[in-house]
Amino acid sequence: MVALEARILAKNDAGAAKNRAWLAGREILALNLVSSPGAGKTTLLERTIKDLKDEVPLFVLEGDQATANDGERIRAAGAPAVQVNTGTGCHLEADMVARGLSQLRPSAGSVVMIENVGNLVCPAMFDLGERAKVVILSVTEGEDKPLKYPHMFRAAEIMVLNKTDLLPHVDFDVDRAIANAREVNPDIAVLRLSARTGEGLDSWYGWLREQRTAAARAAMQI
Amino acid sequence: MVALEARILAKNDAGAAKNRAWLAGREILALNLVSSPGAGKTTLLERTIKDLKDEVPLFVLEGDQATANDGERIRAAGAPAVQVNTGTGCHLEADMVARGLSQLRPSAGSVVMIENVGNLVCPAMFDLGERAKVVILSVTEGEDKPLKYPHMFRAAEIMVLNKTDLLPHVDFDVDRAIANAREVNPDIAVLRLSARTGEGLDSWYGWLREQRTAAARAAMQI
Repeated sequence: MVALEARILAKNDAGAAKNRAWLAGREILALNLVSSPGAGKTTLLERTIKDLKDEVPLFVLEGDQATANDGERIRAAGAPAVQVNTGTGCHLEADMVARGLSQLRPSAGSVVMIENVGNLVCPAMFDLGERAKVVILSVTEGEDKPLKYPHMFRAAEIMVLNKTDLLPHVDFDVDRAIANAREVNPDIAVLRLSARTGEGLDSWYGWLREQRTAAARAAMQI
Repeated sequence: MVALEARILAKNDAGAAKNRAWLAGREILALNLVSSPGAGKTTLLERTIKDLKDEVPLFVLEGDQATANDGERIRAAGAPAVQVNTGTGCHLEADMVARGLSQLRPSAGSVVMIENVGNLVCPAMFDLGERAKVVILSVTEGEDKPLKYPHMFRAAEIMVLNKTDLLPHVDFDVDRAIANAREVNPDIAVLRLSARTGEGLDSWYGWLREQRTAAARAAMQI
């Protein structure tokens, strides 16, 4: 079983390396959004598309077990989207992303957001060729999640604490959540926002701009 | 890959059949609690243990990638618990449950609650020998989840809509959520409750009593 898992991951990593090279060649910033189901990935993307539409060309790959709902939401918000259904599968893999990109045809210099299947476990192990994994944790889920799902929080560059508008109504210790995330990943960046009310979105947009600059600088790394 | 998946599932099913026979022999009701991370499985168990401690002997198997936190919470609430850590694994399997039961030593006629890894995807495929899967959906996650994770909602006997105390603060259409669950599983039972405030718990206890009766009736089925 371990040997088989290693083989699957090695095959995926080879595909991820090709995706990464293609994205670099095209000077595209690609991010891999991961979270529990219902943490607010699609709502954050809808809001980002609306707010940045005059500044950044955004393209979205939507991963879900079933339905085309999220792709429709993204297109309604104003960005091209391709929906990838995984069936019984619990995560996106690099080859699904390669096929999705071929269909999505993102423009040079654009941003590609890959919304993974809602799952704090399996997507942690699968590199898709993204520049960074963005883990979204909603404050309704409890501050212990980084400790209970350490692989995901270790794999992520940044933790976005979402649904801060609900903080007055839930028992959630923000400082504890951040300390827990840093316990498994001392370098993780942290933002707090509410994709629903818009509170804190400026810091998210600031982070995106920094990532675009860094991706552009790395464009000649093959 | 498909052949391999079939072989893993066949091996698991054989283990689940043995677990089921052992549990029947011991006249134990076993339930498999599944949900997204942070939907409130542990809080529901804590509350259930406290409220039913004079009526039902309860034992808990706690599945998590890492930490012994939930096992400690359960023992503090007053029930014996064994923690099963899955490492990078995304779900419990029948053989982990068999080993956990050997360690937990649940008494004859008791109730065993198996709290699965927080994951709406992978645990759907793995029978653990339980009488029923209980899927917990919190109202902060959105009413579309049964359509986006259909395998889990199809595999469950009952959907518990949790965190109803937050309904005034979120955009969640309860009727739509129930309609979505019935679209993928017409026979699914539905309860609404708040494990935090206690609202609606009576119906959950009523359902548990019915399941105990049914499990006792099925005790001679080998």
